[in-house]
Amino acid sequence: MDPSDTGLPVRADLRGEKPYGAPQLDVPVLLNVNENPYPPSEALAADAATAVAEAVLGLNRYPDREALELRADLAGYLSAESGVALAAEQVWAANGSNEIMMQILQAFGGPGRSVLSFAPTYSMYPEYARNTFTAWVTADRRDDFTIDPDDALAAVIEYRPHVVFIASPNNPTGTAVSLELVRALHDAAPGMVVVDEAYAEFRRDGTPSALTLLDDHPRLIVSRTMSKAFAFAGARLGYAAAGRDVIDVLRIVRLPYHLSAVTQAVARVAIAHAGELQERVEQLRSIRDELAAWLRSLDLEVPESDANFVLFGRFADRHAVWQGLLDQGVLIRETGPDGWLRVSVGTPEETEVFKQALRKVLQK
Amino acid sequence: MDPSDTGLPVRADLRGEKPYGAPQLDVPVLLNVNENPYPPSEALAADAATAVAEAVLGLNRYPDREALELRADLAGYLSAESGVALAAEQVWAANGSNEIMMQILQAFGGPGRSVLSFAPTYSMYPEYARNTFTAWVTADRRDDFTIDPDDALAAVIEYRPHVVFIASPNNPTGTAVSLELVRALHDAAPGMVVVDEAYAEFRRDGTPSALTLLDDHPRLIVSRTMSKAFAFAGARLGYAAAGRDVIDVLRIVRLPYHLSAVTQAVARVAIAHAGELQERVEQLRSIRDELAAWLRSLDLEVPESDANFVLFGRFADRHAVWQGLLDQGVLIRETGPDGWLRVSVGTPEETEVFKQALRKVLQK
Repeated sequence: MDPSDTGLPVRADLRGEKPYGAPQLDVPVLLNVNENPYPPSEALAADAATAVAEAVLGLNRYPDREALELRADLAGYLSAESGVALAAEQVWAANGSNEIMMQILQAFGGPGRSVLSFAPTYSMYPEYARNTFTAWVTADRRDDFTIDPDDALAAVIEYRPHVVFIASPNNPTGTAVSLELVRALHDAAPGMVVVDEAYAEFRRDGTPSALTLLDDHPRLIVSRTMSKAFAFAGARLGYAAAGRDVIDVLRIVRLPYHLSAVTQAVARVAIAHAGELQERVEQLRSIRDELAAWLRSLDLEVPESDANFVLFGRFADRHAVWQGLLDQGVLIRETGPDGWLRVSVGTPEETEVFKQALRKVLQK
Repeated sequence: MDPSDTGLPVRADLRGEKPYGAPQLDVPVLLNVNENPYPPSEALAADAATAVAEAVLGLNRYPDREALELRADLAGYLSAESGVALAAEQVWAANGSNEIMMQILQAFGGPGRSVLSFAPTYSMYPEYARNTFTAWVTADRRDDFTIDPDDALAAVIEYRPHVVFIASPNNPTGTAVSLELVRALHDAAPGMVVVDEAYAEFRRDGTPSALTLLDDHPRLIVSRTMSKAFAFAGARLGYAAAGRDVIDVLRIVRLPYHLSAVTQAVARVAIAHAGELQERVEQLRSIRDELAAWLRSLDLEVPESDANFVLFGRFADRHAVWQGLLDQGVLIRETGPDGWLRVSVGTPEETEVFKQALRKVLQK
């Protein structure tokens, strides 16, 4: 339904728009939205039940508006993961990293301001811009989906963006950026530089996190999520690290009590179980590398991936390939530039089913 | 901290702003933020724990983006509460009614548009307007905090607002509006009319809900929350009923997966326990009426309240009264027009402590 057909006084800029979201289909092998294929453990579920039973008895009261215990736990996790010491006051949390990104644009973007990113990139970014009335501008990546530093700096000089979004690793290409580029963009850009590290835990050895730059880059924000490495997509917990001043600004635009007491309690349980994740993450990284190598062995192109998915192509008719896989019960994502497809890294069994299905499609 | 002192590229309209929120103080009697004094039951907590233990095992997957089971349960509850038959597709849910209100302004407000309300009213409304870059305009209520229909219609004609917010019962005054006024505003206003019924379950006998108008008022939205009657403030679950077209428009601006699988599961458990609430709500209504009568017996002014709080005054120095209560361990809210104070309805014991403390303050 087009909102302009409703007769309702909808904003003109929403005409022709549709609700965002990947198709949700009920098929045996779901490799379409970069979920972690391994569910949280029974032990985690039991601890979460205990924590929620306790939290429920206080739910008649509003939650801790500042979520300070959760933010301290997240700071502890990030410090351990990256080696960068962070305090609770340098960490922010919200309902998914998309709420984090919205809050950043509400504080630093908005009407008369712009957000720059590097295409192709995460398809939600222009939605955040639209919802906050921020102008959305892009510079193109190279053919291999890396960012040309000269092109990036030229775009910064041209647009003078108040916010720059850099997904690293990038979705849907898997491509990480160098810290040199982040530094150069931060120094050239007049506004905030947001490095979206949703998939950071899956990065290859030697790929650094922008967390290491926080200390001397006051306009830098590094965004993370529990959806991927923590296998917690259903719990909706995004977070960000930045200077204390930046976090204090986000506190102005956040809705009070935005994070429920239940969400805070369940997220804290998951962080306490973070040790369990490491083995799964290692396994997914090695499945990813093997999958990329296998796809290349079929003479397909595969950009280097630091994430839990790989982009592959190119196909004259990518939709036919996507449909051919779906006909065999394998759902991947038809996203990114024309000619390319994106597959999430599943379990070894799911990956094998995907491989067999793709072989059949390509033999036709 | 003023954001303009940070040297960060913060939006100019946030200069001088502070994070919103009532003071959170640790005192024995909390009657400041209109919470339900009765916690959810042990039975509810146990059922929530069971539901969460199950939900956690699927948290590696994204939640149901449309939250259709929860919306069906909410529709069932609203139908039972109001006698108005509603389908799941006529109900929307989000993280607190403040997210609902934000989504309404993102869809129907925004730059170049305005939202009208009737002052004094809920202090969060101008924050929603600011966060969505919607102009905030008000018309004054009468001295008894009711809305003069002629003044209201004159304001609609003057401002041509794209959205009208009517809190009914109103916060902080407790005042409900007549359905005649809602009808008249809907017919006169060019935009959406939102009746915020956060406290509706506490309304006195004979006070109607605007839900009964939905059928033939296509630009009407009725907003509710589980924070008050459901004693679920910590769970952050707001919801709204409207025509299917209106809900479909909200689906465009909502962030995908805005409601976590845990929030959906826990809210559904609470709705299944809705029967337990009725007795508590009845009790709070009668404590409210007794409290209002008692305050009037002290020659204080008390507007008629349909909510779980009462406004009372007037005091030459309301801050001194507020502080005098706090010194005795009773936290109420210094809000509303100058000279008035707002007290939430607590348990009989809490109410008694409040009365004794107020007597002492007034004797000085």
